[in-house]
Amino acid sequence: MSLRLGLLGAGRIGKVHAGAIAATPGATLVAVADAVPAAAEALAHTAGAEVREADAIMNAADIDAVLITTPTDLHAEMIEQAARAKKAIFCEKPIDLDVKRVRRCLGVVEAEKAVLMVGFNRRFDPNFMEVRRQIDQGTIGKVEMVTIISRDPGPPPAEYIKRSGGIFRDMTIHDFDMARFLLGEEPVSVYASASVLTDPVVGELGDYDSATVVLTTASGRLATISNSRRATYGYDQRIEVHGSRGLVSADNVRATNVEVANGDGYRRERLLDFFMTRYTEAYRNEITAFVQAVEKGGAVTPSGEDGLKALVLADAALRSVKEKRPVEIA
Amino acid sequence: MSLRLGLLGAGRIGKVHAGAIAATPGATLVAVADAVPAAAEALAHTAGAEVREADAIMNAADIDAVLITTPTDLHAEMIEQAARAKKAIFCEKPIDLDVKRVRRCLGVVEAEKAVLMVGFNRRFDPNFMEVRRQIDQGTIGKVEMVTIISRDPGPPPAEYIKRSGGIFRDMTIHDFDMARFLLGEEPVSVYASASVLTDPVVGELGDYDSATVVLTTASGRLATISNSRRATYGYDQRIEVHGSRGLVSADNVRATNVEVANGDGYRRERLLDFFMTRYTEAYRNEITAFVQAVEKGGAVTPSGEDGLKALVLADAALRSVKEKRPVEIA
Amino acid sequence: MSLRLGLLGAGRIGKVHAGAIAATPGATLVAVADAVPAAAEALAHTAGAEVREADAIMNAADIDAVLITTPTDLHAEMIEQAARAKKAIFCEKPIDLDVKRVRRCLGVVEAEKAVLMVGFNRRFDPNFMEVRRQIDQGTIGKVEMVTIISRDPGPPPAEYIKRSGGIFRDMTIHDFDMARFLLGEEPVSVYASASVLTDPVVGELGDYDSATVVLTTASGRLATISNSRRATYGYDQRIEVHGSRGLVSADNVRATNVEVANGDGYRRERLLDFFMTRYTEAYRNEITAFVQAVEKGGAVTPSGEDGLKALVLADAALRSVKEKRPVEIA
Amino acid sequence: MSLRLGLLGAGRIGKVHAGAIAATPGATLVAVADAVPAAAEALAHTAGAEVREADAIMNAADIDAVLITTPTDLHAEMIEQAARAKKAIFCEKPIDLDVKRVRRCLGVVEAEKAVLMVGFNRRFDPNFMEVRRQIDQGTIGKVEMVTIISRDPGPPPAEYIKRSGGIFRDMTIHDFDMARFLLGEEPVSVYASASVLTDPVVGELGDYDSATVVLTTASGRLATISNSRRATYGYDQRIEVHGSRGLVSADNVRATNVEVANGDGYRRERLLDFFMTRYTEAYRNEITAFVQAVEKGGAVTPSGEDGLKALVLADAALRSVKEKRPVEIA
Repeated sequence: MSLRLGLLGAGRIGKVHAGAIAATPGATLVAVADAVPAAAEALAHTAGAEVREADAIMNAADIDAVLITTPTDLHAEMIEQAARAKKAIFCEKPIDLDVKRVRRCLGVVEAEKAVLMVGFNRRFDPNFMEVRRQIDQGTIGKVEMVTIISRDPGPPPAEYIKRSGGIFRDMTIHDFDMARFLLGEEPVSVYASASVLTDPVVGELGDYDSATVVLTTASGRLATISNSRRATYGYDQRIEVHGSRGLVSADNVRATNVEVANGDGYRRERLLDFFMTRYTEAYRNEITAFVQAVEKGGAVTPSGEDGLKALVLADAALRSVKEKRPVEIA
Repeated sequence: MSLRLGLLGAGRIGKVHAGAIAATPGATLVAVADAVPAAAEALAHTAGAEVREADAIMNAADIDAVLITTPTDLHAEMIEQAARAKKAIFCEKPIDLDVKRVRRCLGVVEAEKAVLMVGFNRRFDPNFMEVRRQIDQGTIGKVEMVTIISRDPGPPPAEYIKRSGGIFRDMTIHDFDMARFLLGEEPVSVYASASVLTDPVVGELGDYDSATVVLTTASGRLATISNSRRATYGYDQRIEVHGSRGLVSADNVRATNVEVANGDGYRRERLLDFFMTRYTEAYRNEITAFVQAVEKGGAVTPSGEDGLKALVLADAALRSVKEKRPVEIA
Repeated sequence: MSLRLGLLGAGRIGKVHAGAIAATPGATLVAVADAVPAAAEALAHTAGAEVREADAIMNAADIDAVLITTPTDLHAEMIEQAARAKKAIFCEKPIDLDVKRVRRCLGVVEAEKAVLMVGFNRRFDPNFMEVRRQIDQGTIGKVEMVTIISRDPGPPPAEYIKRSGGIFRDMTIHDFDMARFLLGEEPVSVYASASVLTDPVVGELGDYDSATVVLTTASGRLATISNSRRATYGYDQRIEVHGSRGLVSADNVRATNVEVANGDGYRRERLLDFFMTRYTEAYRNEITAFVQAVEKGGAVTPSGEDGLKALVLADAALRSVKEKRPVEIA
Repeated sequence: MSLRLGLLGAGRIGKVHAGAIAATPGATLVAVADAVPAAAEALAHTAGAEVREADAIMNAADIDAVLITTPTDLHAEMIEQAARAKKAIFCEKPIDLDVKRVRRCLGVVEAEKAVLMVGFNRRFDPNFMEVRRQIDQGTIGKVEMVTIISRDPGPPPAEYIKRSGGIFRDMTIHDFDMARFLLGEEPVSVYASASVLTDPVVGELGDYDSATVVLTTASGRLATISNSRRATYGYDQRIEVHGSRGLVSADNVRATNVEVANGDGYRRERLLDFFMTRYTEAYRNEITAFVQAVEKGGAVTPSGEDGLKALVLADAALRSVKEKRPVEIA
């Protein structure tokens, strides 16, 4: 039996998920919807699926689950609609940029007992999964310090920044989720220092392009996140976890392992620098995990609650910068 | 327009190619044949293709090209049959274990002006392609010395060894092709020293499990190949090329970039140790290259001639070991 | 002409400096003093120097410069005495644990126009010197973010901790100096979060064993320091600097480059885990720099002012932890 | 008690050894001799030793051991003279370029029961010592294949080449010794292929600049040596040993561990490219080992016999190239 899926949103990330579904045994993409009919049609054609209206997908008898990859401001509403229509739900992060709206949305999900998975794809990256597996196996003992370096190759367009909710809700939110995934305890305090170093336009839009965040848990575990919107050498995605018995670290990813040596030294190529290339396998593993979770009926991770908690940390980080103080998490 | 393919042989490597076809835009697997009907059916089902007899595939009007992935002893005959049937041909290496038979087969291919590509998949590995690209760009100047380390994680079953033609024709043949691919000149001399170090059974079968080969070209370029049938740390596949202006090297491949550090030191995981996993991308690129070559109608690489030349080197290596002398290549 | 040196303090670090002097052309160790006569005698014997009283060294006509490697509480007084005696002065860090005392001491140094160099040896480590050289050459453009990971292999004895002034003044002070060395701007804000994770005894002594510090400069440059008093894999000393045009990083140091591969993966040895071994070359380069600075008569780096500024940051970090807020630096 | 040493030869390598003696506790350089008086004086001055005639050093009552670092053609005679004078002897490699002359010399050494150590310094490199230690510990099981890559940064002057005895006796001889050090069995067959690829002048002098050598032992263990007189990226000195249970490898050495990343990729510096810098520690360890061997009175390694055996392999390699066949070792 194959899980029958409807895709709501045929944009860039919608295409990624359609590709992931195609590569997942036991998953079938039945229909695609998009506000731009041509986009829906193009993706449906490639994927061998139908074009339908979003409402039709929500209520279709031949669809078991929906993937919500629309613009962020539609997420919460669509989650609620899908939950009421008894569909299993995969939604791209974030659920909403507003914590209250997220809470209300999760209330509906709970009331409807709906399955909801939030798209923190990095939890499914083979490197980071292995880091977590080593922690779970006890290889490094008790977790003490998590260090996350996360830098984009270049800033998004100004239009994107305006609607993004700012660096903490848009970019760091992945790192907040990763910190929670690895710390083994919830942060109780957030301190952030942020700057505009790469492009003054970012500052004019009220945002930051460089940030350092320190999370502290109740028992004193520490996580550090270092973000920049620009890295000339590619998409810099490193994680290390220091524990009582050792250290586990995940290094960056390149297209090849080739090195050239000459009078100028030894040179390796730049990092993979597009998130879709860097996280291709993560997107596939994520859809596989969603399909399996729906079919097995157990708990879904990352859950709506995980989505909420990362957003709460993002809001706290922003307040920390504005008020120049660490912010406590209730 | 999609290239319509027929697959002859639904064994392990046939499945790999069926998967590669599925991932290749512009290629459609129409039919599968296998001496074992159940194997053909299983693969056809997964791939969404039909089961047909081999002869039927050869002569089908709705099939443009065939992939020959049968046991080696059927390769030459099938290539000839397909060439006469005006199909484009992809054949797994080797064309045959006997040089004369290969020559006769290539005569038919030439007479029929058939397209023939031989499955030296490693030429399509992203790492080795990049090594070659660096050479072609002149990064390392004139090629002087090629070093290939190629070790299998473990020996094949005795039954396989018996029919394999021996280590040089079965295993080193890939390295002979790679050496030719990178040297930029044909070897004129082959010296090989081979031993039985891992398992006496290999020796009882008249074969070797450990070998070192030195190839010398007319201008004095040198290639060294180091083979073993056993590497406890995984499938060891490294290449480096030293030139007048520098060195280019391709390192091994792992599933992740994770490293664990503790009182015992720093530990990275074993290498990918199955050739299908290690060369997944190479198999895909290979099929893409075949499809493009057929559609564009140009020269095909690696060609039947490439297949022949690697076999000639393998035969020379074996003679070198037996006669304890370097063997000249005409 | 050789610079004639007197060594005040024949303990562990005194011996390191005596060895560095022996390896420095143009430097001669004339005399050694220590409160423990046997220690002075042993070191003097090894070094081919005389044993003298500290006061005698201060006032000796045949001594041009003194190295102060006594316990910390004697540093400031000895610096003042040596300054008045017109000796050039090298003093181990810190000048004193009390900022006011340091200021008074530096007042005397200034009044006497004395040469004073403070022993932040890491500035002279070949790796970190190269990081700084790359920055100075403009390789990475404008500095934006400095990341320092600095972990001791194991905690010092409780007795040491008691007199150490705490982790920030004892351990992090090196990292504060390094951050200043690399940031290119003075920090204006210090935030620190610190915990007791490795051993409750540390907490009972009122100290911390794990700390994360964020420094922010006026233009928004960010430095992160991650400290732990325990690293099972050795003495972890890494630095990286992210700039507008690239990244420069210095990795850890091992005794050998040997790697062992087997069924458990690939293993490299632990890091050098003793600061004297790890920084052997830094100690030598430091003494060479001191000797050259004295002979050339120019500015000395790191200066007394550098010593003071690192201590101010350490004090601010401690206050930040106690008061749970970032502390501004005047 | 300190071992009192006389140094015969104050050239480049003589200076290296004088420095090593200075760094070796328990060793004192008493006197230096050189055919060029100014050279002897300069070195004696730096080292705090006397200048004496070679004969005087040989016969001095206050000298226990001599280091012979004169031009090669004086080695054998001086060894014999020193042996008769009952001095312990350290001699730079090779003992002589002629095997018969070496045999005669070793006859004298044996007759006089003299201690003779030959300067194969690489056995004392910390990396290669660790490789050997891992083998001795059984980490990789039974040794099967040794791979040595050994490339000089650039060719020596023509004058040097003329007197060098050719690449095999001058350069590869170190690798022959290393192969013997690691193989655990004596080679019984030598095959070499050599070319002139870097500079025709080398060929005009009757020598080669690029060579590949295969050594085979009685049980079938294989060693491969790859030499070039030019490596644009520095002094390339790598070794790996493949065994029944794993692989141990020693990578190259750089001055720092710094890496720079930018739009062109990740770049590490060139290798250390001067043998004295690369093997500084090896030269020190070598002298320490000599001093200890003399004082303890046990077996000396590498011995005169080791020197002879490496030379026999070098001669065999040259004959292999000339006669285009593998050469058996009696």
